[in-house]
Amino acid sequence: MHPVYAALVHYPVVDRRHRVVASAVTNLDLHDLARIACTYGMGGVYVVTPLADQQEFVRRIVGHWPTGPGAVHNPDRRAAMRLVQVTGTIQDAVASVEVREGLRPQVTASGARAHPGALGHADWRGVRASAPQLLLFGTAWGLAPEVFAAADHVLRPISGDGGYNHLSVRSAAAILIDRLLGTASG
Amino acid sequence: MHPVYAALVHYPVVDRRHRVVASAVTNLDLHDLARIACTYGMGGVYVVTPLADQQEFVRRIVGHWPTGPGAVHNPDRRAAMRLVQVTGTIQDAVASVEVREGLRPQVTASGARAHPGALGHADWRGVRASAPQLLLFGTAWGLAPEVFAAADHVLRPISGDGGYNHLSVRSAAAILIDRLLGTASG
Repeated sequence: MHPVYAALVHYPVVDRRHRVVASAVTNLDLHDLARIACTYGMGGVYVVTPLADQQEFVRRIVGHWPTGPGAVHNPDRRAAMRLVQVTGTIQDAVASVEVREGLRPQVTASGARAHPGALGHADWRGVRASAPQLLLFGTAWGLAPEVFAAADHVLRPISGDGGYNHLSVRSAAAILIDRLLGTASG
Repeated sequence: MHPVYAALVHYPVVDRRHRVVASAVTNLDLHDLARIACTYGMGGVYVVTPLADQQEFVRRIVGHWPTGPGAVHNPDRRAAMRLVQVTGTIQDAVASVEVREGLRPQVTASGARAHPGALGHADWRGVRASAPQLLLFGTAWGLAPEVFAAADHVLRPISGDGGYNHLSVRSAAAILIDRLLGTASG
């Protein structure tokens, strides 16, 4: 099985009125996703934002842990934060995985809406046999339509009991990564 | 199947040195757990804290959505926040579920450490047949030992690929609720 990477995408995403925007980076999103990636043995986490000040913000958070005061204070967090890096675009994240793995990754988009031809979560496990994978998680109101159109795979949305379907990106990423990469033990 | 409630516990929990403390409420924890509870058709979410100022903080966040400016701005969030209420102790949350359901709930504790006799996640689904359930999630470094000792059930920890096991309470709650209450579809 090939390695799996995650990308937390801040552009292009949509706002509540479906306009394409760049969203702001949230400190806790980074921490949560890094710790999930570490728990599930993922290859790494890309924080995708084209905004220079936001890139700098991410580097400051990440830099605090591997070498800064956080490294001594909280070594577990350090191990997780080592997995995180910033890129300006989704394409740059794809290129980075290709350099690291020597193989171009397939891109899998996730979101709260149904898409024709979307892959079930159990079925997705099979695609890992053919190539490294980059899982995209959209912040704000989700990934822009162009991202879904360009992706190699789209995942079915998480559905619970009722019609309500408004999880935070933190929760959605946790649940999806567990469904895609988790072992059934526990 | 009986209804399932969640409690986000801020006391008694332990800090990094295993001392029993009361932790501070985090705004995003409330939002994430309320939205998960709404998605998975749970009965409600209790925020457990004995500290008066923290209780007031929770009421302010929750009150913003059902009737305040948030109700108009974001109706989806309102539906989720309606599920949240504050109690001073875990016992008060148990008593509240008993009043609502007419049956005393069983208490299930969750955490990152292994416990003898802990229930597997698939096995837990069976306990819903006998009584309403209250799932406890510990903030800070997890629920205090006395909470595990008093619980009717303890869940096995979430384990990923490696030995790393330091998820945020937000991530752990999302993954566990999906494993316990999720349908396999998707």
